[in-house]
Amino acid sequence: MSDDPLALPQVSESRLMARLEALAEIGDTGDGGCARLALTDEDRAGRDLVVGWMEDLGLEVTVDGIGNVVATQPGFDSEIAPVMCGSHIDTVRTGGRYDGNYGVLAGLEVIEAAQTAGLELTRPLAVAFFTDEEGARFAPDMLGSLAYAGGIGIEDALDIVGIDGVTVGDELRRIGYAGGAPLPGRAPHAFVEVHVEQGPVLEAEGLTIGAVTGVQGISWQEITISGQSNHAGTTPMSMRHDAGFAAFAIGAFVRGLAIEIGPPQVGTVGKIDLEPNLVNVVARTARLTVDLRNTDETELQSAEAKLVAFLGELAEREGVTIERRTLARFEPVAFDERMIGLVEATAERLGHKVRRLPSGAGHDAQMMARICPTAMVFVPSVGGISHNPAEYTSPGDLTAGTQVLLEVMCRLASGPTDPDQLYEM
Amino acid sequence: MSDDPLALPQVSESRLMARLEALAEIGDTGDGGCARLALTDEDRAGRDLVVGWMEDLGLEVTVDGIGNVVATQPGFDSEIAPVMCGSHIDTVRTGGRYDGNYGVLAGLEVIEAAQTAGLELTRPLAVAFFTDEEGARFAPDMLGSLAYAGGIGIEDALDIVGIDGVTVGDELRRIGYAGGAPLPGRAPHAFVEVHVEQGPVLEAEGLTIGAVTGVQGISWQEITISGQSNHAGTTPMSMRHDAGFAAFAIGAFVRGLAIEIGPPQVGTVGKIDLEPNLVNVVARTARLTVDLRNTDETELQSAEAKLVAFLGELAEREGVTIERRTLARFEPVAFDERMIGLVEATAERLGHKVRRLPSGAGHDAQMMARICPTAMVFVPSVGGISHNPAEYTSPGDLTAGTQVLLEVMCRLASGPTDPDQLYEM
Repeated sequence: MSDDPLALPQVSESRLMARLEALAEIGDTGDGGCARLALTDEDRAGRDLVVGWMEDLGLEVTVDGIGNVVATQPGFDSEIAPVMCGSHIDTVRTGGRYDGNYGVLAGLEVIEAAQTAGLELTRPLAVAFFTDEEGARFAPDMLGSLAYAGGIGIEDALDIVGIDGVTVGDELRRIGYAGGAPLPGRAPHAFVEVHVEQGPVLEAEGLTIGAVTGVQGISWQEITISGQSNHAGTTPMSMRHDAGFAAFAIGAFVRGLAIEIGPPQVGTVGKIDLEPNLVNVVARTARLTVDLRNTDETELQSAEAKLVAFLGELAEREGVTIERRTLARFEPVAFDERMIGLVEATAERLGHKVRRLPSGAGHDAQMMARICPTAMVFVPSVGGISHNPAEYTSPGDLTAGTQVLLEVMCRLASGPTDPDQLYEM
Repeated sequence: MSDDPLALPQVSESRLMARLEALAEIGDTGDGGCARLALTDEDRAGRDLVVGWMEDLGLEVTVDGIGNVVATQPGFDSEIAPVMCGSHIDTVRTGGRYDGNYGVLAGLEVIEAAQTAGLELTRPLAVAFFTDEEGARFAPDMLGSLAYAGGIGIEDALDIVGIDGVTVGDELRRIGYAGGAPLPGRAPHAFVEVHVEQGPVLEAEGLTIGAVTGVQGISWQEITISGQSNHAGTTPMSMRHDAGFAAFAIGAFVRGLAIEIGPPQVGTVGKIDLEPNLVNVVARTARLTVDLRNTDETELQSAEAKLVAFLGELAEREGVTIERRTLARFEPVAFDERMIGLVEATAERLGHKVRRLPSGAGHDAQMMARICPTAMVFVPSVGGISHNPAEYTSPGDLTAGTQVLLEVMCRLASGPTDPDQLYEM
């Protein structure tokens, strides 16, 4: 394969955008957004549409036991592992049209562009969509890719009960996507996921491409404070055991903690509920969540420890009891350094402004990173908005990311098929 | 009248408690509490019961245009203004059995004890219950006593629409308590209200009687913060406009402000609602309330001004917009110094441990203070708990407060009936 980028085909913006539009019509919420919760009728309709496109390209489509769909170029020796890309097509209830969908449809576009150009590769290209990445109907999120990577047994996965009381297994059978391909899935040669950033960094810095270094570790905790309900007028400040104030103090502490540790540490109290939640009553109970993230596991553990220490001091000082429950805990994932470098170099070669950055959100790529060299390509999200009908990325940026994906995948799928040799720069 | 306290009759604990029990059965919530929202069927039943007791004692019962009921001892020259006590018998939805009811039934007990003893007074005793003190169904609270004191016109009062969409006027007519007595009502010679403290001070200090110096001024504000909703993982701390954090900062500031100003200043953020209120989303909007109270209007205004200044700095620093709306604003009320001294001296003479303290809650007495010398007598609330089925004051303390009420009222209703002469110690 030539090092000359002009030798590679250009992706088609119009084809990419047409597919994004068509998929967004399924579960269209009428305000620019999409609602296709995993394994609903809308998800089935979206799956059927995408599988149709995969078949139109002559790809071999397999469906595994958790409903992951993988479409692979045919005609290669079965010993040769594909270069895979992919993402998900389920959305949150008030989702946008790019989150996930873009990564799948960009992959389809890469394959169509490569095939149309008659590009000869030494490995097949493949594009996948994984089941229930959002976790908005069935927890945990990233369920399909977790199962693909062997992180959860299929029986356990199928028994998961959703917010509406039905199981993953029943819903998979109902929509016709309980397939026979084995789990865990076959390890690809490499995996690349292109995705909208869902954060403000690229736009704010005027960049087109992000070379994702990994996924932040996530610590979610629910904190319940029990104080004493009192009349807001008649109870002197010194005699209060104010669960609300304790919650506010935690909210202020979490902000200070994240700033003290410094980037990429983030800390958020996004949810708080007081009881009785009345203007003139000192709160008896406060329940709040703390979301801490860092790309460094040691730093993340340190942040957690500082929070725990603060909670102890606070409970003592305010005369309240504080209980803590872990809602979710994921260690950070570091992507393959060679893969990150390839994304970065490719974007630069194509003339884009690029930076390395961690992903603050979870992605299927972090599961695939368990079984093969993995990278992600980010494109800007306008205003950093995601999980929202207002989610938006310009067609130009979507196309730029797709071209980077094409060139990275083609590079990985060229040259010798020695399993240990990822690529040559 | 003799200065010898032994010459005054003793109130009957058993009669007082029996009436409290009987009234508490109407609207009994089954957990020790009462639900008799103003002008409901339960309120009517409670009114009918209390009016029956008033008539049993031979009192002249009048009902005015807002449904306030005044029962006055007969047989006095109509020129001689009565010494009045009273409170209210409506409750909040999850009310206790003492708040308000105690003040009315203690007044009945005072009159029954005085009449049974054949006490000869120079002024009539009177007991009143005022409509809609709680404001739990019709805002504002203290509506009946406000109208009695001429603070709101009857037409405006009757047009008030309740939380269930009906008007005060319609409900008064429906329950048969739209009376003909004139409004504003006649100014009594003096007014005394006995009430449970609804706060923890008396119990905590081991006292039986509080001589209430006045009612704190109240400033209720609703603060709405508009920031930017963002992904909690992908948005660096430096790029956030976190409405939730701004709200927590206000909650912490209000606590610090109250402590800095010092007692009797109190400050409470008891209500907060975030949107979207999710663990992994930086809040777009926060709405919270701030309740500031002080007995000194200048201090209260200073607290308000400091809050406003802080909101300005906070909005600037966080890049959020902050709107502020006044929900309620009452200036402090100072009771008559002679009346406060009489309550204090009477309680001491009866051997009770007593202190002066302000009321943190609003009471009908603060409206009556507009038209006559007024005082309040507090008895302890166990745990400071009120507006709650667990509200409790011991029979001994209830009786002690009633005896103080009797002696204060009888002192005020003795001696010359010169309108300018309140009493002689």
